[in-house]
Amino acid sequence: MSDATAIPDLTARAEALDAADELAKLKDRFTLPEGVVYLDGNSLGALPAGVAETTADVVSRQWGELLIRSWDESDWWTAPERIGDKLAPLIGAAPGQVVVGDSTSVNLFKALVGAARLASPGRTQLLVDAATFPTDGYIAASAARMTGLEVVPVDPSGAAQAIGGDTAVVLLNHVDYKSGRLHDLPALTAAARAAGAVTVWDLCHSAGALPVGLDAHGVDLAVGCTYKYLNGGPGAPAYLYIADRHQAAFDSPLPGWNGHADPFAMTPEFAPADGARRGRVGTPDILSMLALEAALEVWEGVGIEAVRAKSLALTDFFLACVAQYVPRGRVESVTPAEHAHRGSQVSLRTENAREVMRELIARGVIGDFRAPDVLRFGFTPLYVGFADAERAARTLGHIFG
Amino acid sequence: MSDATAIPDLTARAEALDAADELAKLKDRFTLPEGVVYLDGNSLGALPAGVAETTADVVSRQWGELLIRSWDESDWWTAPERIGDKLAPLIGAAPGQVVVGDSTSVNLFKALVGAARLASPGRTQLLVDAATFPTDGYIAASAARMTGLEVVPVDPSGAAQAIGGDTAVVLLNHVDYKSGRLHDLPALTAAARAAGAVTVWDLCHSAGALPVGLDAHGVDLAVGCTYKYLNGGPGAPAYLYIADRHQAAFDSPLPGWNGHADPFAMTPEFAPADGARRGRVGTPDILSMLALEAALEVWEGVGIEAVRAKSLALTDFFLACVAQYVPRGRVESVTPAEHAHRGSQVSLRTENAREVMRELIARGVIGDFRAPDVLRFGFTPLYVGFADAERAARTLGHIFG
Repeated sequence: MSDATAIPDLTARAEALDAADELAKLKDRFTLPEGVVYLDGNSLGALPAGVAETTADVVSRQWGELLIRSWDESDWWTAPERIGDKLAPLIGAAPGQVVVGDSTSVNLFKALVGAARLASPGRTQLLVDAATFPTDGYIAASAARMTGLEVVPVDPSGAAQAIGGDTAVVLLNHVDYKSGRLHDLPALTAAARAAGAVTVWDLCHSAGALPVGLDAHGVDLAVGCTYKYLNGGPGAPAYLYIADRHQAAFDSPLPGWNGHADPFAMTPEFAPADGARRGRVGTPDILSMLALEAALEVWEGVGIEAVRAKSLALTDFFLACVAQYVPRGRVESVTPAEHAHRGSQVSLRTENAREVMRELIARGVIGDFRAPDVLRFGFTPLYVGFADAERAARTLGHIFG
Repeated sequence: MSDATAIPDLTARAEALDAADELAKLKDRFTLPEGVVYLDGNSLGALPAGVAETTADVVSRQWGELLIRSWDESDWWTAPERIGDKLAPLIGAAPGQVVVGDSTSVNLFKALVGAARLASPGRTQLLVDAATFPTDGYIAASAARMTGLEVVPVDPSGAAQAIGGDTAVVLLNHVDYKSGRLHDLPALTAAARAAGAVTVWDLCHSAGALPVGLDAHGVDLAVGCTYKYLNGGPGAPAYLYIADRHQAAFDSPLPGWNGHADPFAMTPEFAPADGARRGRVGTPDILSMLALEAALEVWEGVGIEAVRAKSLALTDFFLACVAQYVPRGRVESVTPAEHAHRGSQVSLRTENAREVMRELIARGVIGDFRAPDVLRFGFTPLYVGFADAERAARTLGHIFG
């Protein structure tokens, strides 16, 4: 394939798949630049159409005109738990268990220290996904240091065997940020439960792309960001899930006044709030939080099962197009071929990956690069179509042509 | 004073003071609702005029059009330290020592644990302002629990005597949130230094209202919010100051990937960044952060000494008006009369304070209430004038009339 000539069979298939796609119309709920194929929603989701208007109202009317009164009159104060309840269905959580605020790293610290304090006394190990997104490992090391645990890195595929009577806490990523591998949350959670360990799942790369089922699978604690498949905006507030059965005993290392049972009593002693609200810390970041709330409106009437089905169809089709457009041997997929092990991204290993991605972006196909040699392509079913996948593979082939 | 009749002497003085006020024109840099006297800038600062335009650009162009590219092209990535440097002069810090992000509570946890790790081995006490804003006490208790220290509550006026050879860390508020009392940062810092203790100052109620002089007075660590006198917006990101001399040894309990020397290397081991940047944790909250950056533009050409002079003149004048408008015995100021001990708010104790504040707000004078019996009136010299102070006192008098 020495030029960018389209393969008629692939363009025809893309057209047919797009025509049959019941989610295709959801693209209208986003504002995307003309002429761009955006395959980096696994890093920063696109802009939902309603966010600009909401943000303008929050700034000019709620803040500018109502001022301090908006804490009550614009319902700012309850935003963390209200928005938590809005995203809860996307991760399979019943109401009252999710609170939004802080970054993923900060929530992970709360979750891991909280988990260590929930764990049975005498257990010494904090098992951590060895291929984890780095911040998870760094925060786990800090949480372990401050709670007297020992960090034990594990390959998630063998984690079930590694969990035992010494395991206090297990921290795993649902989808690996680099390879796009989906880990078996139901089985790994069951193994941890059987061994009496407390589970903490990082959902950054799965929430909004596939069913998670936190309640159904008995997960104890979970965290995730909202700026990838949830499209909350750059650095949007993250969330913390505390299963109902653990809420009364959850003992946060960050007991800020917002997590107090009666914050405005301003008592010298901390008395934790009931429910997920005790996961709150300081004053919530209202601009970003209400932008996220507006962003979640794109999910109206959308089922996560349908999103998952389209995600797999998109990544299947992209891999098929890559196989035909890119000369043999130039790229190697590090994302599992089996659906059961694939998230919503395709990671291709190649030489000069940094330069290849720069070329792709110059040609209007936006993915990203992870050192040393990985091209990442994220497929957000709400706004990516099959013609986009074909064009991305064709452009990649052209660069190698 | 049985009705709302103005006292001509006071209205004339207000007029003269406003006419002579060189900062009066700064009010044009804010968007304030018509007919309102806003005396709650010590809780939520007013909206700076440039914020709405910046926020619209951040959402629609930087996020919506440039998407992931904005991390570089819109300089999102460096925002925490860049904005830290922009607010540094307001707290007397040379560049490179302030980083913006997270809430005050989270920054306080970093600072207190970091301080405990900087402290000389064998010291056992964490001294905390007994009248502190509650979150400081709650977070101090958690930091102490996790570092093996013991919390010792102290009255800041006697703190210099309480600091001794067992003192590891001293946490004090520069201005008390409830009484408006200004504590003697230079003397208390000097006492702590002389005793070999590490100082952490909470600047929430002083930054932007009066000179702080962190570098000049040898403060070790400090935190503060940006949504009061710095007008950053509801829940805007807070900041952490790490004095140059401590940066190499500062050991954060929240070592997120943004605080890594080379975040995108994604190495399994944490290697802290140089400088204040090691105080970063997770992905910065860009919408709120860039709103804050725009908000800080109101300080262009404004000296904090002039702000302090006007602040004292405003609170003096307000107290004089209250003395004349409010029937004797109905309110009692809990804010010190001496300038050296007064921040930029006036707190009045009264019966039925909650109802009185509700009445004031209904009449267009916005302050706030702190349980059980305190009316708080914050004076932000950038947008509050002397006629506002007169009207507020007159309205208060009318309610008691």
